[in-house]
Amino acid sequence: MDKVVNKDTRKPENEELERLRFEMRDLTANIVRQVHRRMELSKKIGEIKTNLKMDVKDERVEQEIKSMVLELSDEIGMSKEFATQLIDILLTESKKLQQRHNSETHDLPANSEQKKQTHLSIFLKAKQLELSGKKIIHMEVGEPDFAAPGNIKETLVDSFNTGRYHYTEPAGVMKLRQAIANKLKRGITEDMVTVTVGGRFAVFATIVSLVKRGEEIISIEPAWPAYRDCADFIGAKTCVLRTSIEDAWVPDLDRLEEMITPNTKMIVINYPNNPTGKVLEKRMMQKLVSIAKDNSLYILSDEVYSDYVFGEFDSILDYDYDKSIMISSFSKSYAMTGFRVGYAVANRAILSKIVKVQATALTSVAEPMQYAALAACSSDPSDNVKVMKKRLDFITSRLNKMPVDFVSPDGAMYVFPRLRQQSLADDTVEKLLEMGVAVAPGGGFGDSYDNFIRISACQPQSILEKGLDIIGSVISVE
Amino acid sequence: MDKVVNKDTRKPENEELERLRFEMRDLTANIVRQVHRRMELSKKIGEIKTNLKMDVKDERVEQEIKSMVLELSDEIGMSKEFATQLIDILLTESKKLQQRHNSETHDLPANSEQKKQTHLSIFLKAKQLELSGKKIIHMEVGEPDFAAPGNIKETLVDSFNTGRYHYTEPAGVMKLRQAIANKLKRGITEDMVTVTVGGRFAVFATIVSLVKRGEEIISIEPAWPAYRDCADFIGAKTCVLRTSIEDAWVPDLDRLEEMITPNTKMIVINYPNNPTGKVLEKRMMQKLVSIAKDNSLYILSDEVYSDYVFGEFDSILDYDYDKSIMISSFSKSYAMTGFRVGYAVANRAILSKIVKVQATALTSVAEPMQYAALAACSSDPSDNVKVMKKRLDFITSRLNKMPVDFVSPDGAMYVFPRLRQQSLADDTVEKLLEMGVAVAPGGGFGDSYDNFIRISACQPQSILEKGLDIIGSVISVE
Repeated sequence: MDKVVNKDTRKPENEELERLRFEMRDLTANIVRQVHRRMELSKKIGEIKTNLKMDVKDERVEQEIKSMVLELSDEIGMSKEFATQLIDILLTESKKLQQRHNSETHDLPANSEQKKQTHLSIFLKAKQLELSGKKIIHMEVGEPDFAAPGNIKETLVDSFNTGRYHYTEPAGVMKLRQAIANKLKRGITEDMVTVTVGGRFAVFATIVSLVKRGEEIISIEPAWPAYRDCADFIGAKTCVLRTSIEDAWVPDLDRLEEMITPNTKMIVINYPNNPTGKVLEKRMMQKLVSIAKDNSLYILSDEVYSDYVFGEFDSILDYDYDKSIMISSFSKSYAMTGFRVGYAVANRAILSKIVKVQATALTSVAEPMQYAALAACSSDPSDNVKVMKKRLDFITSRLNKMPVDFVSPDGAMYVFPRLRQQSLADDTVEKLLEMGVAVAPGGGFGDSYDNFIRISACQPQSILEKGLDIIGSVISVE
Repeated sequence: MDKVVNKDTRKPENEELERLRFEMRDLTANIVRQVHRRMELSKKIGEIKTNLKMDVKDERVEQEIKSMVLELSDEIGMSKEFATQLIDILLTESKKLQQRHNSETHDLPANSEQKKQTHLSIFLKAKQLELSGKKIIHMEVGEPDFAAPGNIKETLVDSFNTGRYHYTEPAGVMKLRQAIANKLKRGITEDMVTVTVGGRFAVFATIVSLVKRGEEIISIEPAWPAYRDCADFIGAKTCVLRTSIEDAWVPDLDRLEEMITPNTKMIVINYPNNPTGKVLEKRMMQKLVSIAKDNSLYILSDEVYSDYVFGEFDSILDYDYDKSIMISSFSKSYAMTGFRVGYAVANRAILSKIVKVQATALTSVAEPMQYAALAACSSDPSDNVKVMKKRLDFITSRLNKMPVDFVSPDGAMYVFPRLRQQSLADDTVEKLLEMGVAVAPGGGFGDSYDNFIRISACQPQSILEKGLDIIGSVISVE
């Protein structure tokens, strides 16, 4: 029977298919034409904005259109994820066209935000200067000058002798995952830990696996630029909650709550903070987690400086929030930046997505480096912490005599002073580099911090002293 | 004067702006509604396809729609890149809806292609079995069993003693880049070389930086699954040129030329090939490069096995093609898989994009591993190559007595036989694993190779012999 029915209907169904496909082509062409009309309209709006000297970007209008589209998609039963993508590519293309018009009119380089100095660009410049024979005091990069734990040397030899230089599981060598879990306590088990190529790859894999194009993350600035870079990489948007030196770098969590849109997927926090050294009070952490819970947002908590804390500190792991990802690394605590071993801690479902990105991008972390990290786990970095605290005290005591404002750090390895004079810190940074001191320009940590510099305490005090003498002489006479 | 004009027109321009924005909202809502209609239509087509038991994917129809959209965009002056993205998200969503309908109707797990075994999944299973005490002969993974060059041990100690464990330039330590350039000759200079986390990260960074969502790469299968995985990662499409054992794995380049569409961006080649060991003749390479030139396509040439060649071999570097990217690594030639050091060679413009991805994702490659690779450069891997050739000869001589077909490899470290019996090789692979031999299932290298297995020659001959005894006994009685 079935067979007969099939046979009978096949012909008309095939005709129906052809008819529908024809309609489909028509409809698709129509959509493209309408999208084109939208782009033409967008250009016109761009022209008017240019004439009115208005910024091409308009957050309010953009959010309105996004909300309208999401409401409409809800009403007609279109998937939210798809609607988000659709409106994102329309808005992105509109902005591109308006910017192009704007730059053509004003004879600017197309599509360029002004190229900013960052701690990395200064580091590279400093390296170049060193190659040409110049002596540079490195107060720009977050690399502790301490020696890595001594037992690592033996471990490296041992890795070689025993042939431990093969592919490992993408999530990392089991013994290292266990050692990290043991160190973290709080009931963390090895299946909630993945070893990554530095904390940076943990950040990268977390953002690209959990946030999609057109979706949003909230970043609290000043911040390490990596969060924004990783969001940019997949075409996600970074919404910035600015904090200020006047508020002692305390974020306004009411404002954060207002920033949440249906497109928001993740809040990124980094305490102790790079560059300010701020640690969030327990009360604030509680509120932040509760906001994330209410809105079902991921929290990516970058805790690479958590060993360098001089008072109280709550890890996100203390909150048992199932949409949280804690990231840390061996780079800072154990002075092992160049070993490139970090890790992420999250529930199994999230972790498997992070591991999949790592397997796709690079198979696994170098095995000798994983065993080096395992060896480090049995050493105690607390002496490093004491030394760092002493150096930061020294730096702040010297800065107290200069025309700068700053908040004394609660942790991490930096002081983030604001220069009182009006000139841009970028020039100061260049001048300092000429004088033989590299510091990180504040503008690299967010748009509102051009008058700040980040001073890193990763040098012996005697060298810091020389660097601070030069800094003092440059910023006092400017 | 200017000022006056501006003042006079500001008010009406603002009104004009409001009017245009209103129109924009209307138009946007209209687009969303039409896109929704398109999705409804797509569902209907999916239903009919399900009733007709047709595959949801239809390459021909998809290409027709894409071409129509690209032509139309050209006609109306819409950017090709944008049109590609737009049609891609429409088609992707359509397929998703059709697949969902299909799986709901047939009670299949949603959105699932059947989960395939790959050499990696078998490797992980084998590792699990070993943890439970079982002995496994590893003929599945491409990891040479040779010792890494002996001078590396000293280098590792030296790296530790001299504190060479810091961040490096994202492109890698200059001395290593120079050593690689010297090894490659052909006028390659260090500024055309970047060191990466294994060859795999070079592949990843190359594909994600040069190919965009909705664009296409052409991959010649059977192939290492990484190319497709990396394309999937950014939402690019992998178009497959299948090769067959009947044609001795020679690709049909006329067919390749036909496959090129306005969306095609890159051809990926891998010779000596993993898994077949095929090397392309000079005449074929010339034709392939000329096709790429004519169509302005990138060629990603994965040459990680180029030291394991038993006859003639042309590198893509011999063709001086400015849109080529040559990728290689220390993993295979020097038996250094777990050090995770690879590299990409390309012109400066391409290279800077690759380096930017690496800087974003992971800062730089572990410095001790870079110095280990530098040490390896001064050693000679030619003994490894001789041994590998001898082992492959041994394997093929044994396979000659089994019910399999294969082409003797021109290079690399594998033989890729087809089992003559009809049963799927996946079952055979499982059975072999139970019997203590891990081999890679052919299905992991492309859809048309389920009856193949990849046998890796990365074990001493005595162990290979035991493995082949088991393989012979299993496939002969089946």
